[in-house]
Amino acid sequence: MSALVLGHMNPDTDSIIAAIAAADLYNKRGLDVTPVAQGAPTPETAFVLQKFGLTAPQVVSDVAGKEVYLVDYSDLAQAPKGMDSATVLGIVDHHKLGDVTTSTPLEAWIWPVGCSNTVLKNMYDFYGVEIPKNIAGGMLCAILSDTVIFKSPTCTPADKKAVEELAKIAGVSDVVKLGMEMFKVKSAVEGTSMHDLVFRDYKDFDMNGNKVGIGQLEVVDLSILEPVKAGLQAEIAKVKGEGRHSVFLLLTDIMKEGSEMLIVSDDPAVVEKAFGVKPDGDKVWLPGVMSRKKQVVPNFEKAFK
Amino acid sequence: MSALVLGHMNPDTDSIIAAIAAADLYNKRGLDVTPVAQGAPTPETAFVLQKFGLTAPQVVSDVAGKEVYLVDYSDLAQAPKGMDSATVLGIVDHHKLGDVTTSTPLEAWIWPVGCSNTVLKNMYDFYGVEIPKNIAGGMLCAILSDTVIFKSPTCTPADKKAVEELAKIAGVSDVVKLGMEMFKVKSAVEGTSMHDLVFRDYKDFDMNGNKVGIGQLEVVDLSILEPVKAGLQAEIAKVKGEGRHSVFLLLTDIMKEGSEMLIVSDDPAVVEKAFGVKPDGDKVWLPGVMSRKKQVVPNFEKAFK
Repeated sequence: MSALVLGHMNPDTDSIIAAIAAADLYNKRGLDVTPVAQGAPTPETAFVLQKFGLTAPQVVSDVAGKEVYLVDYSDLAQAPKGMDSATVLGIVDHHKLGDVTTSTPLEAWIWPVGCSNTVLKNMYDFYGVEIPKNIAGGMLCAILSDTVIFKSPTCTPADKKAVEELAKIAGVSDVVKLGMEMFKVKSAVEGTSMHDLVFRDYKDFDMNGNKVGIGQLEVVDLSILEPVKAGLQAEIAKVKGEGRHSVFLLLTDIMKEGSEMLIVSDDPAVVEKAFGVKPDGDKVWLPGVMSRKKQVVPNFEKAFK
Repeated sequence: MSALVLGHMNPDTDSIIAAIAAADLYNKRGLDVTPVAQGAPTPETAFVLQKFGLTAPQVVSDVAGKEVYLVDYSDLAQAPKGMDSATVLGIVDHHKLGDVTTSTPLEAWIWPVGCSNTVLKNMYDFYGVEIPKNIAGGMLCAILSDTVIFKSPTCTPADKKAVEELAKIAGVSDVVKLGMEMFKVKSAVEGTSMHDLVFRDYKDFDMNGNKVGIGQLEVVDLSILEPVKAGLQAEIAKVKGEGRHSVFLLLTDIMKEGSEMLIVSDDPAVVEKAFGVKPDGDKVWLPGVMSRKKQVVPNFEKAFK
C-alpha cells in the first residue's frame, strides 16, 4: 500500500506543491508515496498548477490505518480524520512544532525558513536528486507565495537562494513578475462565496484551551476587499458561533505591507493585549504585520496566557 | 545569553557527545551555544571523553527562561525543569516524535537512524563544517554504543557510513576493537550502587496514561550481572513504589544478542501480551531483543493500548 503525503486543511500553494515535490523525492529514494490533499486547490494554486503543467493531488479526508508523511504542519488540529490509527513516517515543515507525536522513529525536516518548499529544495540537494523542471516551477511559486515575494518577515536568505536556484531549473527569468501575476490571481474575489474567502487560508489553533480561528487574505490592494468586508465580518461571526472563542481574519495588503484584522471574540481586549493597538470597533489596522505564523500567532499565544 | 544544548535525563554517551558536537557545529554556524547535561557521565561516557580528550559538559537541572536545543529526545518526561518557560530553538534526534511543542519555528533534524550523532555527522556535512578530530572520535563511539557495535536492529546503513567516515577523521583504525573496549567498561558493575545501575540508562514513558520505567544494562556477558540480580530486582521494586505502574530492566547480552528482562508491574500479564513469551516469575529471556527503542517500547505501547 502506497504511503500518502499530505499538507494541512484548507491547503495553500505550499501544502499542495510540497506534497507533489515530497512524493517525487520519496519515490526517487525508492519509497512508494502518493501525493494527496485535504481540499481542492485555491485559485492561486490552480494558477500555479496550470502554469507548470502539474496535476492537483486527489482529495482525501480520512487516513485511518494509513502510513502518512505530513508537509507544512505538525498540529493535530490541521490533520485529517483517522490520525489516531495512522503511522506518521515523516514531516517536512517550517512552522512551530505542533502536537503530533509518533510511536516509531520518523524522518523530520523542520526548519525556521519561509516555506516548506525551501526545506524540500535542500532535501533534493542533500539526497542528490534532480528536481524536475515543472516541479521546480511549482516550488518557486510556493516560496514566492509564502514569503509574499520576499516581503514577509518570515523570509530568510535560504528562501531567496532556493528561489534563485529553482528559477534556473524551471527556466523562469523574472520571478518577481511571476509572483505579481500569482498574487493578482490570489486577490480576485468576484464569484467567490464569503465562506470560501474566509477559509481560503484559515487555521484553527488551541490557545491556552481556547479554540481560535485565524484566516488570511492577501491582496495587492486592500480596496479590492472593500465591497465584501461586511460579508466577511458576518461570515466570521458565523464561524465563531460554531464553538470558537475568537475568529480573526487578516486582510493583508502586500504592497502597503500591513494587515487590517477583522475581529470577532468573546474577549476583544485580547487584540490590544496582543498588538498594543486599540481596535476601531470590530477591526484594526496592524502596520507591518504580514505573517500569521511569525507575528500574529505568537502575539496571540502570549496574550492568551 | 548563550543558548544551551542538552540531552535527556540519565544521559548516555549519545546524549553527552551529541550536545558537545551540536554546540561545536552551532557555534561554527555563528550561533552562541553551550553544551550542558542533565547528569554526570556514566563510566562508558567517561571512558570515551577521556579517550579523546573531551570535557564533560556542566550539569544543569533547570532551564527556565533559557533558549535550548534538545539532542537525543523530544519528550517532556525526559526534559529538565523549567521547560514551560524555555524556548526550544532546535531538536536533533533519532527517536519517535515526543510531546515537546514550540511557540515559534525551530530547526529539527529527526531521522530514523541508530544514533543522534549519525544525524549530526550529516548536519556537519550539510553545512560544510569540518569535524574536529577529538569530537569525531566521541561521535563514532556514541554510534558504536547506540548501535551495539552495529548489532542492534536500530542500526542503519547511514550509521555504518558515518562511523566509517568519522574513524578516518579521528584516526581510529579498528572501530570494533574500540567498541569492545568501551563495552567492557560499560559491563563493569563492581563499586556501583544498585540505584546507579538501574538508572544508568533509564527512561520513563507515558503508556496510555500509565507511568512505565524501562532501564537497560548492556554487558558483554550476562554472567557478569549474576551477583547483582537480586539487588537490581529489589531496586526496581523501590522505583516502582514511587508511583509507577511498571518498571522493567533489560539485561542485554550483546554477544548472545538477547535480553533478560526483570519485571515489576501492577499487571505482569502485559509482558506476555507484549512479547508472546511467558515470564518465569519476575523475569523473562527475550531472544533477539536488544533495542529498547525499536523493540521494547513499541511492543509495550501496543500491549498497554
